[in-house]
Amino acid sequence: MSENGPWGKVLTIDTMNPTVKKVEYAVRGPIVQRAVQIEKELREGVKKPFAEVIKANIGDAHAMGQQPITFFRQVLAMCSYPELLNDSSFPEDAKHRARRILQSCGGSSLGAYSASQGIDCVLQDVARYIERRDGGIPCNPENVYLTTGASDGIMTMLKLLVCGEDEGRTGVMISIPQYPLYSAALAELGAVQINYYLNEDKCWSMDLSELKRSLKEARRHCNPRALCIINPGNPTGQVQSRDCIEDVIRFAAKERLLLMADEVYQDNVYAEGCEFHSFKKVLFEMGPEYSDSVELVSFHSTSKCYMGECGFRGGYMEIINMDPEVKAQLNKLVSVRLCPPVPGQALMGLVVNPPQPGEPSYINFIKERSATLSALAEKARLTEEILNTVPGISCNPVQGAMYSFPSISLSKAAIEEAANDQAPDMFYCMRLLEETGICLVPGSGFGQKDGTYHFRMTILPPMDKLKVLLTKVKDCSLLPLPGHQGECWRTDKNHKLNK
Amino acid sequence: MSENGPWGKVLTIDTMNPTVKKVEYAVRGPIVQRAVQIEKELREGVKKPFAEVIKANIGDAHAMGQQPITFFRQVLAMCSYPELLNDSSFPEDAKHRARRILQSCGGSSLGAYSASQGIDCVLQDVARYIERRDGGIPCNPENVYLTTGASDGIMTMLKLLVCGEDEGRTGVMISIPQYPLYSAALAELGAVQINYYLNEDKCWSMDLSELKRSLKEARRHCNPRALCIINPGNPTGQVQSRDCIEDVIRFAAKERLLLMADEVYQDNVYAEGCEFHSFKKVLFEMGPEYSDSVELVSFHSTSKCYMGECGFRGGYMEIINMDPEVKAQLNKLVSVRLCPPVPGQALMGLVVNPPQPGEPSYINFIKERSATLSALAEKARLTEEILNTVPGISCNPVQGAMYSFPSISLSKAAIEEAANDQAPDMFYCMRLLEETGICLVPGSGFGQKDGTYHFRMTILPPMDKLKVLLTKVKDCSLLPLPGHQGECWRTDKNHKLNK
Repeated sequence: MSENGPWGKVLTIDTMNPTVKKVEYAVRGPIVQRAVQIEKELREGVKKPFAEVIKANIGDAHAMGQQPITFFRQVLAMCSYPELLNDSSFPEDAKHRARRILQSCGGSSLGAYSASQGIDCVLQDVARYIERRDGGIPCNPENVYLTTGASDGIMTMLKLLVCGEDEGRTGVMISIPQYPLYSAALAELGAVQINYYLNEDKCWSMDLSELKRSLKEARRHCNPRALCIINPGNPTGQVQSRDCIEDVIRFAAKERLLLMADEVYQDNVYAEGCEFHSFKKVLFEMGPEYSDSVELVSFHSTSKCYMGECGFRGGYMEIINMDPEVKAQLNKLVSVRLCPPVPGQALMGLVVNPPQPGEPSYINFIKERSATLSALAEKARLTEEILNTVPGISCNPVQGAMYSFPSISLSKAAIEEAANDQAPDMFYCMRLLEETGICLVPGSGFGQKDGTYHFRMTILPPMDKLKVLLTKVKDCSLLPLPGHQGECWRTDKNHKLNK
Repeated sequence: MSENGPWGKVLTIDTMNPTVKKVEYAVRGPIVQRAVQIEKELREGVKKPFAEVIKANIGDAHAMGQQPITFFRQVLAMCSYPELLNDSSFPEDAKHRARRILQSCGGSSLGAYSASQGIDCVLQDVARYIERRDGGIPCNPENVYLTTGASDGIMTMLKLLVCGEDEGRTGVMISIPQYPLYSAALAELGAVQINYYLNEDKCWSMDLSELKRSLKEARRHCNPRALCIINPGNPTGQVQSRDCIEDVIRFAAKERLLLMADEVYQDNVYAEGCEFHSFKKVLFEMGPEYSDSVELVSFHSTSKCYMGECGFRGGYMEIINMDPEVKAQLNKLVSVRLCPPVPGQALMGLVVNPPQPGEPSYINFIKERSATLSALAEKARLTEEILNTVPGISCNPVQGAMYSFPSISLSKAAIEEAANDQAPDMFYCMRLLEETGICLVPGSGFGQKDGTYHFRMTILPPMDKLKVLLTKVKDCSLLPLPGHQGECWRTDKNHKLNK
């Protein structure tokens, strides 16, 4: 007889949803749990070879000290407590935005449910933003859905799409390395994950031949129906070229794949010669042969770019060429959850409709935005530069987004040492955490070619901490591996790419 | 050849997720869509027999003009724009709460992701709240999870639970009438919905014999594993007695069912002699035989009670007696979505830790809270009173929550008229909307005994509008049904209950 009566629990690991068990999410996995524990130990006075944990595991700008955009927060404060609309210390443009948002809310309150698709004036503003971004290509607000962060939109779209059994089961192509929301969502939905590999030798670009190989192989055992792209890339920090995006669109059209473009880093482009091209713009510039037929969903969020407002869980998706009957089903599906968080909707509305030239907040807004983006550009450059001086580490340029995903050449001894119970790069990251307090995520959490090892680090820590982090990563490569006759963690084999 | 190239769309109604197609959600269904359309027509100057639409379809207090609690909004404004902490016009207790929340946020910003389980200080405050509410029965903050409204928590728990195929498929018992989130979630997850009927003749109480009947029948074709209770009831407005809750717990223990207690209306109790009893308190007062083994999850939210802050999507769930391995899976599952919206978490924290006696905001807080709750109590009374004077309508007392769910006796002619393409009560509500501008939800959207008809109306409209609404419902019962020789919508058969 178990401790819980004659039959034990109703809900056990053996009787729970098997698809949930298959879900993995490295960004908040064992490394981060251990980091939190170590922080607690440090607070309790446990002696460590370092004074603080530096977290570079998650794209969480504010947690790393980035300051919010003043204008956004002023408007949100007034929306939360409309008495402040009478406070003369707030600028008029901020008041105007707050009034406009409140007028679009039930009972003029952030506390009312919005329409499930989102607050009307925000949908309008998103549509105008997309039109400006894409050089005037029209956007119908009816095709815009506000979401609870981009994750929610991605999950909703995948949910609509998944069907079939056995060899007819829906397959979804995702890049490897990928952001593990995708693999987690596919596992949860019981869909088939189809891996296509980004080309590390060509700065993590997408490769048409690899897409073809991956699709051909997948067609043997499932029904591939969608292709997901993250651009700028997470965890790999590349910015796809216009040519590459055209190739991908032609491929999707020919192979009948719905495109899901995760474009949450659309303002995070640092490298010279790189530019963000939205999938929608490229699609429409390719002419009606494509723009009238290819089904595309594009995702954006308040969490990244220069604002980094992750906690508000704001986001939107734009659907293009969706079947009207499916759209009706999408409307129904989102209505069950009532609405995305209204403060996040309001924030999304501000992101797409920031202060304009001539408005009182404009100069300060531009100053704050530029400061953040140029600091990120500088950190991207520095990260690449320093990592590439480290023996055994090779790092592509961080062209965009917020991450570096360097390849690490682990010593045979380290691989052996790890082999028993974890992936070698998990072993590496865990040891790095224990010895230096640096919290990175192993490449195995994102996927990588067999026999290669990587880690993902964000470029978000403040400059002084980023330098400490990079120095520690560098120094640690020379530390001997206990019990392996002076062998080090990493080999000093210098397999630089793009040099 | 279709208009979309040789093969048509990738994603069509025939090739989408079939479980999504089965989802229904009446609260935002066709009636509400039509109401929105009518509002637009009115704005455009289309002549109608009424000047405005009165919406009583959804429990959205702020949309109906209820004012937010000043203290909550002051704290949220300061959390959004911490400069306001220096503003002398805000009271010290509000500043203290804002500082406490911000200190618990990464980078002292609402814009940082929180831990997936929630902001630490809010988890602590929720646990203390539960302990106070339940007369000191301990609550471990590790068993509390903040959620995106209660809906998110309910969906997450059901997701954990569902497994098996065919006759082994997980079944979940839900009350009929129910809040349609439950049926929608079960449809989406492909779980089996097991209906147990509330006893309308006994003021919508739960009936042990009905639970047994329902379970026995379900065991023939699925694997019943959970029992959901909404108390106070939605859409039925009843408050379950302590005895009834004890019966349910004994039943769940004996039959090995996990209990899901939706207690989002825990402060909404109006009727004399009625009292809210939390399932947790009753469970623990029944002694270790039950409290050591029965698995219980209780849900709460910021959306209802006296605050009515739906738009913030705040909520929590407390898990009791969950298997530790399952809890680890739950932790992983919630981490994929990163975190619930942080402003909603902050608000949940304020709801469970409001101003205390002696603090500067206390008196005003109590005043505002009491005003809302006593207005609701008065509206509950008035709704019951007026509806029960209407021929053909019979209405149980609104003991709690925010809804009346009266039975309507439709004329044979009305039923015939409806029969072709919709449920008779949908037909009734649609006609009522077209003729009077009143927006109610048909009982068929919540489930009801065959051959009975109901509607759900919220008691939230301001008193003057509520009176207009009730009068229109009353007058409309006597309107003739076109083409049916003077027969009316409703029969004047007076089948009053509890009279």
